[in-house]
Amino acid sequence: MSVVEQRLAGLGLSLPPATRPVANYVGTKQSGDLLFVSGRVSLVRGEVGSEVSPAEAKIAARDTALLILAIVKQDIGDLDRITSVDHVRGFVRSAPSFIDQPQVIDGASDLLVEIFGERGRHARTATGVGQLPFGAAVQLDMILRISP
Amino acid sequence: MSVVEQRLAGLGLSLPPATRPVANYVGTKQSGDLLFVSGRVSLVRGEVGSEVSPAEAKIAARDTALLILAIVKQDIGDLDRITSVDHVRGFVRSAPSFIDQPQVIDGASDLLVEIFGERGRHARTATGVGQLPFGAAVQLDMILRISP
Amino acid sequence: MSVVEQRLAGLGLSLPPATRPVANYVGTKQSGDLLFVSGRVSLVRGEVGSEVSPAEAKIAARDTALLILAIVKQDIGDLDRITSVDHVRGFVRSAPSFIDQPQVIDGASDLLVEIFGERGRHARTATGVGQLPFGAAVQLDMILRISP
Repeated sequence: MSVVEQRLAGLGLSLPPATRPVANYVGTKQSGDLLFVSGRVSLVRGEVGSEVSPAEAKIAARDTALLILAIVKQDIGDLDRITSVDHVRGFVRSAPSFIDQPQVIDGASDLLVEIFGERGRHARTATGVGQLPFGAAVQLDMILRISP
Repeated sequence: MSVVEQRLAGLGLSLPPATRPVANYVGTKQSGDLLFVSGRVSLVRGEVGSEVSPAEAKIAARDTALLILAIVKQDIGDLDRITSVDHVRGFVRSAPSFIDQPQVIDGASDLLVEIFGERGRHARTATGVGQLPFGAAVQLDMILRISP
Repeated sequence: MSVVEQRLAGLGLSLPPATRPVANYVGTKQSGDLLFVSGRVSLVRGEVGSEVSPAEAKIAARDTALLILAIVKQDIGDLDRITSVDHVRGFVRSAPSFIDQPQVIDGASDLLVEIFGERGRHARTATGVGQLPFGAAVQLDMILRISP
């Protein structure tokens, strides 16, 4: 078991089943040492700040990061090949007055730093939007660097 | 004529005239082997799910991808130099209840896979937003990898 | 003083104090020659096109670019190490009918081209969204290329 998955287990977490893209694209695309990871949405649906609480949305962001890691593992074989989490982009489906997108996306960022350590520290952008695929609460994509 | 343009012709499609950026930026920026392509919006205006149908928006996404390819050709000379479509980001100006952004952006993704084959398979994120430049229905940007 | 900061001074501008990320991420992440810069929001709050005028928002975009440069300087030591501004992504918190996002983000783009010259010319995407962290008017992130 990879070091990353051992740390996940230590947190009482595990990877969910990897799901396939819902449309004509791939889960990850490797280009040189970079791995571009497609956007994935949370299973939690609804508008954050009205239908979904910030605390629920933060957990949804964490779980979306876990889903992305499951997809990455499926594609590259071993999560320990990830040498750097370069950028995380998070969209939060936000009620008109909801302005705490960073706290929501911390659900993903906290997990990445906990399990990857220093190489998990990443640049990030958290943005509020009016709608997401399937009416999801949170959407994440990432750029990773991987070893050969 | 490039292989890519031959395939376009085989689909009954052709590149539109390349347009210039509307503000102080460039259509594409090469950095190492990566080509960062600026966001472009569809000629189709309106909110998808109310003023614009999903089927119209899907065609608008395809046509925006064609516009981007015209701009890329202008800048790098030959579309066959594209060795990988790394990431496509699509924003759909969405009515409050519209949640089928992936199906809209498939208009672009389907085209890229048809004309580039395996190297056209890409990571992707499709997101709903409330407004876009010029009131456009769709906006796309891309990261490509090109050969010297 | 770096050439870039001399040009800033020539415009009557200077770098603000670098602020720290508000959540669990880093201001910039270097990966190979690329520097991924986290999204930062303007100090100007409010919806552009209703509470904030386009002219005010354009200045807010410029000032957000200055803040990002301050953060980059803190992390890499010398802004003259920036060899290319690859991509700038701008989100504008937009009133429902506001469609001039490009003119707003030009506040950032104009500055980058003025102080970096040719290497400051960049690919760019300007998008309208319904909400941003802290209710800010503008959010920017960047991908830069830097020398060792």
